[in-house]
Amino acid sequence: MPKSDQSPLQIGLAGFGNVGAGVYKNLLKNRDLLQKRIGRALEIRRIVVRDPAKAREIALPADLVTTDLDALINDDEIDIVVELIGGTDRAYDLVKAALERGKTVVTGNKALLAERGKELFALAEERRTPIYFEAAVAGGIPIIKTVQESLVGNHIEAVAGIINGTCNYILTRMTAAGLDYPEALTEAQALGYAESDPTLDINGWDAAHKAIILASLSYGCWVPTDRIYVEGIEKITRRDIDFAHRFGYVVKLLAIIRLHPESNAIELRVQPSLIPKGHILASVNGVFNAILIRGDVVGETLFYGSGAGQDPTSSSVISDLADAALWRNTCEGQTGFVPHGLYGNPLPIEESISKYYLRVEADDVPGVLAQIARVLGDHDIGILSVIQPEDHAEGSAPIVLMLHYATFGTVRTALSCLKELDCVREEPILMRVEQL
Amino acid sequence: MPKSDQSPLQIGLAGFGNVGAGVYKNLLKNRDLLQKRIGRALEIRRIVVRDPAKAREIALPADLVTTDLDALINDDEIDIVVELIGGTDRAYDLVKAALERGKTVVTGNKALLAERGKELFALAEERRTPIYFEAAVAGGIPIIKTVQESLVGNHIEAVAGIINGTCNYILTRMTAAGLDYPEALTEAQALGYAESDPTLDINGWDAAHKAIILASLSYGCWVPTDRIYVEGIEKITRRDIDFAHRFGYVVKLLAIIRLHPESNAIELRVQPSLIPKGHILASVNGVFNAILIRGDVVGETLFYGSGAGQDPTSSSVISDLADAALWRNTCEGQTGFVPHGLYGNPLPIEESISKYYLRVEADDVPGVLAQIARVLGDHDIGILSVIQPEDHAEGSAPIVLMLHYATFGTVRTALSCLKELDCVREEPILMRVEQL
Repeated sequence: MPKSDQSPLQIGLAGFGNVGAGVYKNLLKNRDLLQKRIGRALEIRRIVVRDPAKAREIALPADLVTTDLDALINDDEIDIVVELIGGTDRAYDLVKAALERGKTVVTGNKALLAERGKELFALAEERRTPIYFEAAVAGGIPIIKTVQESLVGNHIEAVAGIINGTCNYILTRMTAAGLDYPEALTEAQALGYAESDPTLDINGWDAAHKAIILASLSYGCWVPTDRIYVEGIEKITRRDIDFAHRFGYVVKLLAIIRLHPESNAIELRVQPSLIPKGHILASVNGVFNAILIRGDVVGETLFYGSGAGQDPTSSSVISDLADAALWRNTCEGQTGFVPHGLYGNPLPIEESISKYYLRVEADDVPGVLAQIARVLGDHDIGILSVIQPEDHAEGSAPIVLMLHYATFGTVRTALSCLKELDCVREEPILMRVEQL
Repeated sequence: MPKSDQSPLQIGLAGFGNVGAGVYKNLLKNRDLLQKRIGRALEIRRIVVRDPAKAREIALPADLVTTDLDALINDDEIDIVVELIGGTDRAYDLVKAALERGKTVVTGNKALLAERGKELFALAEERRTPIYFEAAVAGGIPIIKTVQESLVGNHIEAVAGIINGTCNYILTRMTAAGLDYPEALTEAQALGYAESDPTLDINGWDAAHKAIILASLSYGCWVPTDRIYVEGIEKITRRDIDFAHRFGYVVKLLAIIRLHPESNAIELRVQPSLIPKGHILASVNGVFNAILIRGDVVGETLFYGSGAGQDPTSSSVISDLADAALWRNTCEGQTGFVPHGLYGNPLPIEESISKYYLRVEADDVPGVLAQIARVLGDHDIGILSVIQPEDHAEGSAPIVLMLHYATFGTVRTALSCLKELDCVREEPILMRVEQL
């Protein structure tokens, strides 16, 4: 049994933004508890920031500060580099240099891992130096450790995640307070739940990056970003949420990762989706995240918590630091990602099957439903039910349909035909009814 | 960095009941995946059963079977002893002997750890040999690892767990199908969700054992079984569930573990409790379990899954085996439990404060409510609302009250006075409205 080093673990912290400052604050706050539990002190030796003069809520400890990332790399006393600067360029260089110097890396950078994880983990493997990344997915929820360690004995059959707090907050407010999308977004920005440029959250790509990481842990391979299907919530209106409600559903932005056993293909997509009201995922509201995982041995499990924010995310960074201090994952072959070829290729989105919610804005004249139904029938798409609300603006009328199981490819083809109809006035809104 | 042993890990399996057979089955089923992920094979070398001739769903591999527990202890090739025989006598002897021989122990035995964990972990510490016990609490939900590792940076403020699947199944059926308690219990037994002798589940002690283990991880000390308050679900009727529904609540058997910051006291109790309908714990139904944890850094998190059953529980045993194979927790000071004196004594249940649901069956004559209200008023207990349903059996009438915050001690004293009233016909039913 290896005897661990009892000297303080020396940490180089790159970035003192929201999460970086939280890590600093909470390491100090719970210092005694951590030392008792880990049996080793965690000591921040150096902090790198771009602008030391910037006003901050949590004061920078002046004696530790530098603006030079190389100061972390070149300091042989530093055991662990914590990368919290974000982006994919300087962060990549930093992580690469740290691994090359044999330093353990802790990062919360989902974009970096989703886009360049393959090469970084290959380097970590080669240098036998682990990368920890609990903070990269779902903030304070320990989903990385859960998939990597707790569910190690499971083939992961499916993952369904509400993993973008900004989108979930907006959809929750549209549902609970009847806000329109722009109002809800403005409110989220005012409360700090959405960035001033919310593009990456709203368009689904933040969730997609996290989904790529979860898929890598589940299936031992990195799905390229150009092989996944990503849709955001920009087009969803309050009325879609109302109509979904009338059918018995709520609308959530879901990241889906699923193995197709017949083809061994991996389905990976992010889309606004309908969830039955009684389902546990339907009660995940506000900025909270939740990830539902179905394993062949464990069955259905769900992990819920704060998906972002200074404190929750720093809880995950600190658990990574504790793991590093305990020499976790430092055995042969364990560097934080286990590549293997047990699973197949990404599933093309066109082949994925679902029921659908479809809203078409059309002229308010007789015969319109018949035209729409004919197009769907021509594509062998069954109609489960139809709502034609009477309260609508003059001239244009919504027709809301629940469609039977069909491939996404078929439905998209039908949609392009629907758009050609003279009576159809706007881009139709299509959402999946998710099978959970 | 320690180089791990690449030879197969040799496992001695004690017990081939429901969970033991599941571990055997699932290790075989996912053997390739496990070896890829862990980098080391897991091999069952010997299986101890009481009666090899017994008919079993999963056939015993005849070449591995023995009836002698010492065969595991005395075999120097065996690295890990997996204790799944249950009970607290033979199991205690087995675990003790294994630790004394330097063997890693994996166990799913909650009663053993709750009652004798203190001495077993002291021995593990002395022998520097870890005990893993993920399967001991909440079946397939990785709650042990979560508290020990993922939330390591948190002071645990509160834990609220639905951690007995039998009780949750019975309460769910009483709620959803309007069954009475005896009917729901009979149904649970027919479906294999309750034992033929369901006492330990129904009376709350199974949940209490699990709560003691969770408290030990949260607070670094073992709360003695005689210092906790445990109530079962035997007295709850369908009518209580209906009344709770009318107040906006559902009834769940909750295990509560909570730190009182002013006194540093640990509150630990198991009771049927009222939960607001919109709360995420209210949507945990059937045999599923869920544990809500509030940490000072991470905020609120919830972990949901199958709390029992062959496959889910074996998922947890297998994750323990993988951890053992990866030399997890084998560093100085890490044997699966970290004792420390950072927290105080158990909170006496009398001092704990709550709102309450109270149902009193009384004579159907005028002035009864006044008598009950006077007793409560004499004890300074406020009444929030009252239901006096009109549809009741002749002569006796239920009076259902929601009581304001009061200590459990005060309410119990008031209850004993209520019972002295001539108009009160039965033992009143009291449940907490849980603050979550």
